[in-house]
Amino acid sequence: SRDPTSNPTMRNTHIRSLLALAALTCTAFADEGMWLLSKPPVAAIKSSLGVDITPAWLEHVQKSAVRFDTGGSGSVVSADGLVMTNHHVGSDMLQKLSTPDNNLLAKGFFAGKQEGELKCPDLVLDILWEIEDVTDKVNAEAKNAADPAAAGAARRRAISTIENESKQKSGLKSEVVTLFQGGQYHLYRYRSYSDIRLVFAPEEQAAFFGGDTDNFEFPRFNLDCCFFRIYDNGKPLKAEHHLTWSKAGAGENEAIFVAGHPGRTRRLYTTDHLKFIRDIQMPATLGNLWRQEMKDQAFAGRSAENARIVRDDMFGVANSRKAYTGLLEGLQNPALMGIKETKEKALRDHVGADATMRDKYGEAWEKIAAAEGAYAEIFLEKYTVDGVIRNSKLLSQAMHIVRLADELALPSEQRLKEYNQAGLDQLYMQLYSPEPVYDALAVHELSIQLSRLAEVLGGDDEVVTEVLDGKSPSARARELVEKCTFKTPAACKKLVEGGKSALEDSKDPLIEMAKALDPLSRELRKQYEDEVESVERASYAQIAAAKFAVEGDSVYPDATFTLRLAYGKVKGVGAVKPFTDLAGMFARGAERKGEADFALPQSWIAAKDKIDLATPFNFICTADIIGGNSGSPVVNKNGELVGLIFDGNLDSLVGDVVYDAANARAVAVDSRGLIEAIRKIYHADTLADELQK
Amino acid sequence: SRDPTSNPTMRNTHIRSLLALAALTCTAFADEGMWLLSKPPVAAIKSSLGVDITPAWLEHVQKSAVRFDTGGSGSVVSADGLVMTNHHVGSDMLQKLSTPDNNLLAKGFFAGKQEGELKCPDLVLDILWEIEDVTDKVNAEAKNAADPAAAGAARRRAISTIENESKQKSGLKSEVVTLFQGGQYHLYRYRSYSDIRLVFAPEEQAAFFGGDTDNFEFPRFNLDCCFFRIYDNGKPLKAEHHLTWSKAGAGENEAIFVAGHPGRTRRLYTTDHLKFIRDIQMPATLGNLWRQEMKDQAFAGRSAENARIVRDDMFGVANSRKAYTGLLEGLQNPALMGIKETKEKALRDHVGADATMRDKYGEAWEKIAAAEGAYAEIFLEKYTVDGVIRNSKLLSQAMHIVRLADELALPSEQRLKEYNQAGLDQLYMQLYSPEPVYDALAVHELSIQLSRLAEVLGGDDEVVTEVLDGKSPSARARELVEKCTFKTPAACKKLVEGGKSALEDSKDPLIEMAKALDPLSRELRKQYEDEVESVERASYAQIAAAKFAVEGDSVYPDATFTLRLAYGKVKGVGAVKPFTDLAGMFARGAERKGEADFALPQSWIAAKDKIDLATPFNFICTADIIGGNSGSPVVNKNGELVGLIFDGNLDSLVGDVVYDAANARAVAVDSRGLIEAIRKIYHADTLADELQK
Repeated sequence: SRDPTSNPTMRNTHIRSLLALAALTCTAFADEGMWLLSKPPVAAIKSSLGVDITPAWLEHVQKSAVRFDTGGSGSVVSADGLVMTNHHVGSDMLQKLSTPDNNLLAKGFFAGKQEGELKCPDLVLDILWEIEDVTDKVNAEAKNAADPAAAGAARRRAISTIENESKQKSGLKSEVVTLFQGGQYHLYRYRSYSDIRLVFAPEEQAAFFGGDTDNFEFPRFNLDCCFFRIYDNGKPLKAEHHLTWSKAGAGENEAIFVAGHPGRTRRLYTTDHLKFIRDIQMPATLGNLWRQEMKDQAFAGRSAENARIVRDDMFGVANSRKAYTGLLEGLQNPALMGIKETKEKALRDHVGADATMRDKYGEAWEKIAAAEGAYAEIFLEKYTVDGVIRNSKLLSQAMHIVRLADELALPSEQRLKEYNQAGLDQLYMQLYSPEPVYDALAVHELSIQLSRLAEVLGGDDEVVTEVLDGKSPSARARELVEKCTFKTPAACKKLVEGGKSALEDSKDPLIEMAKALDPLSRELRKQYEDEVESVERASYAQIAAAKFAVEGDSVYPDATFTLRLAYGKVKGVGAVKPFTDLAGMFARGAERKGEADFALPQSWIAAKDKIDLATPFNFICTADIIGGNSGSPVVNKNGELVGLIFDGNLDSLVGDVVYDAANARAVAVDSRGLIEAIRKIYHADTLADELQK
Repeated sequence: SRDPTSNPTMRNTHIRSLLALAALTCTAFADEGMWLLSKPPVAAIKSSLGVDITPAWLEHVQKSAVRFDTGGSGSVVSADGLVMTNHHVGSDMLQKLSTPDNNLLAKGFFAGKQEGELKCPDLVLDILWEIEDVTDKVNAEAKNAADPAAAGAARRRAISTIENESKQKSGLKSEVVTLFQGGQYHLYRYRSYSDIRLVFAPEEQAAFFGGDTDNFEFPRFNLDCCFFRIYDNGKPLKAEHHLTWSKAGAGENEAIFVAGHPGRTRRLYTTDHLKFIRDIQMPATLGNLWRQEMKDQAFAGRSAENARIVRDDMFGVANSRKAYTGLLEGLQNPALMGIKETKEKALRDHVGADATMRDKYGEAWEKIAAAEGAYAEIFLEKYTVDGVIRNSKLLSQAMHIVRLADELALPSEQRLKEYNQAGLDQLYMQLYSPEPVYDALAVHELSIQLSRLAEVLGGDDEVVTEVLDGKSPSARARELVEKCTFKTPAACKKLVEGGKSALEDSKDPLIEMAKALDPLSRELRKQYEDEVESVERASYAQIAAAKFAVEGDSVYPDATFTLRLAYGKVKGVGAVKPFTDLAGMFARGAERKGEADFALPQSWIAAKDKIDLATPFNFICTADIIGGNSGSPVVNKNGELVGLIFDGNLDSLVGDVVYDAANARAVAVDSRGLIEAIRKIYHADTLADELQK
């Protein structure tokens, strides 16, 4: 009965009813949307939830919300800079802080006192402080450009200049965010913190109970939490804003809000763009994830230590694989694509019926289709070369070392954007991270990527021949790792600071490999920026303008891993009740006895008699979320914390392209279940006291 | 230390030493080769092993060897038709004979008495009885053809006629085998048996101890055996030939022989053809296996019953994935490709230096390269459409039903070859198999294949649109299975026998789907046959002729899933000793305690005190084998059984394209370990008595 493909007829019916609705209106459904904090849907919230949200409420929520640079969300939950997020957001740090003899990911951690809190090697937390619309500034630079490629380059230069000037003036981390795929540009200034320490994490068994089988499912029983503390000048941050813990928690049908950092959606994409995602991008992406997951499983099977060091990577791969599987299933559903086509046709008909609009915006859709056609030509090669570099830590370091030597010689606004002056400190922090380097894992990573490169470019390709140097992928990977000269932060720093001449002297074969890949990687990037991205930006700006003209500006932009507000109610779906309780965890463990992913943690078995088994544990709500929202606080109308987002259900996965109001649900840990577990299972009373102070 | 990527430098050195050797000679290495029983390497065996093999010895071995139509080997091991093979060859039948409450794959089986032997639903065993060279007959038909495509069609017609005439005349199953990729054609006549009953199998835990982690590794501890009995006219076969059990087993360095059915090798492929395999075929094949394995894991995770019904499929997928991973690693090794290029250049230089040879054979290599270029254009589409049909049992049945209605109306030699009159009985047997149909598994299979089809052809493709019928892949898969009308053998037979008119009346959506795919599938097949296969056959015939002219005819053809003889010695590799013993199984279990794949079976734990732990269990030998050899008997110079092939080591995987004499080893269960386990762990004394009679 837990088969996620069960009742597909019903699901299909739901999409057909969405289709009917879509024909009637182009505005968002009730509870839909990942809204800008600078443009909240005040009226819609009032109408759906009966709640008035105020500027003060908004500011409080905004300045309590935290972005994890590793790709997740969190919130400040005490006056002393305590930050709550998910275990699966913190897991990257738990992995890096572990040793062969002390596996924090598996065993969990509690510092007890502040002195015991563990400093993370390379974690940066950001709190959004100021927002400024810089659309006109960005576009001004591009106005007189000869063609889309030149306009794109001009915009990139303008963005770099804006970010650098803002950083210099304000001292705050400054990032220009592209909204509506190019319709608007906002400058976000963050208070950014890089002294982050681990406070508490449960065992993975409790945090990820049910494993891949229960992932993206509900009912659910996960204590998916992790606590860090922000330090500022060596002391716990005196936070200006933090969320207080709700005494009562949230009840069924109660209004709730989620403030987090959804990573990416594609809801405003044209249908041709979505078909590119469906037919080109997703198949390649899933193909790569399947490869990675099988290779990781084989690697993990070879020894317990291998299993330990690859564990966190495996979770990430499996999680993406399941999410994209759901997305592709949606994209391959002709009924869903029909919804998008109907909506698009309505807007295009509007534009076509008005001569002025037709002139200004009429060609945008075809231009995007042509750009995606151009992208399809180079996609697999670019995706592969980018992935080869990104998915091997050592190679990606080598590429930064090689590129820094070239890029730092240029004025900031002419550099590749990741070497923009405003972002260099954070880049250096990651590059010189003291996280452990495991040779076995490094060989594994490189071996996969070398083989992948040879597959896609062909075994006789010049670059492939050069990087393999006459050896098989695994033999060459071992040699690259053996001879790597920059495995320590100090050695890496020395190479970077030595600049061009140090690189010329280096005989490090990984540096050679990076040099061999660099021209191809840059060429593909330039082709993408000139022929695809530039066209998309300009054309989507036109579509956004048309949309604003037709639908008013009460439209939310697609997710961009920046702060957004979602809203809704605690609400079941079909026969599924909105809450699970602690007793359910024990029942599910008994039901799937003997399966590793469903083994109850010893701590839970030991505490079973002492906890209130009726305590609400996980709940679902209609808030519109997606990957990146993991760790987001769920707050009530008073701005009090009632839950911790950690997942969406299967029907939420298609939310990447369309929000399914009837069936999509966000999944959260209930604040009451959190406190009960922290106090009575983990005996972390000082933490619970700080949360409930 | 069990890392299969360990010591790659050494491995690379080996390949470099192969390269050096290859430059010196074009003849086979010692112990290399999968030889035709009709042309055994008598002199090489004498020289390498000091053994004279006689025609009587050969006939005895040939007529004791058994082919499993499901893709494996075996041997007759008693006068009463007892057949020995691997558990992983028999597992398909173990799965089909299981029920939710009686999982023979997991629990094992022993019939005890002949009355208790379980009849297999659709297993066919063949014993090779007669061999006839029909090369001239086949080629005569093609001589006056206008072009390669017409010549190819003429050869296919000739083969069909030869098979049908032979079947009619001899009453024996008759198959024409294409050797040397088209250099020779031999007619093989088999005694074929379809009443096959299960006698004995151990638990999967014992047969596949160590799982995917230890697969293709040595040292090894697997009781990978399974016993069936051939029945003829309802009674145990009175076998004319069977292998007797060696009293002593084989010692280190002793001469051994393997008679089995290696499935496919590509050793005689041109380098351009190998590059096609490397860059096009293997990446697509592995990509599909990774997808299948991940999907199967998710399916198995949803319930214990799912896990049971998909178990045997998962083993097959994992096994292929690991084998092809090893092969691709080899193909991507420039040193290995260098060996092939050197060999090829030597032969081409020879041909080029002689005007007559140059005229006759000189263009063959370029023609094959062009054919592979043409194949590359359609490969992914053809591979996908073929796979979509093959990998869903219901859809493949539907396609047979649809095609039979058309094909049976044609003269036999004009039909697609699988509908040749000589093979129809076996096709019907498989089509009407009483094996259980599981709806959940059928939905799973179709869902994967529908999504795969949409990925490769594109979501807007006409065929895709037609087969999805407006639904998502999983929703459509459920509908297809719900509405399927031919799930019972009787219903399927009725549809086939109803012919065209029954099909026109049928509203079965799977039949409609087969009809939608049929034209595309036929078109791709025709393109392949006309532009690729026909050219390959003709050009490889020229290359083979050139090879025979230059190297003499002491060359063995690539494997074709027909009977071959391999030879060699029991021999360790590097520091690895040739034998393991029963004690090692317990030690390995203790070493990997807590991992499911390494759990010792209860039967073994219970019997530990009663068995002789020093009994040899598994051994390795230099015989040249590959997939399809699984279940082959290992015999000594007296033709007595000393072992049971079940695997090769990692270095043997590249044997698909080149035999690595220094490192490749075949892995076998020792006859002594078999008897010790059968008697003292499984208490199957009547079986042991029959084997040792």
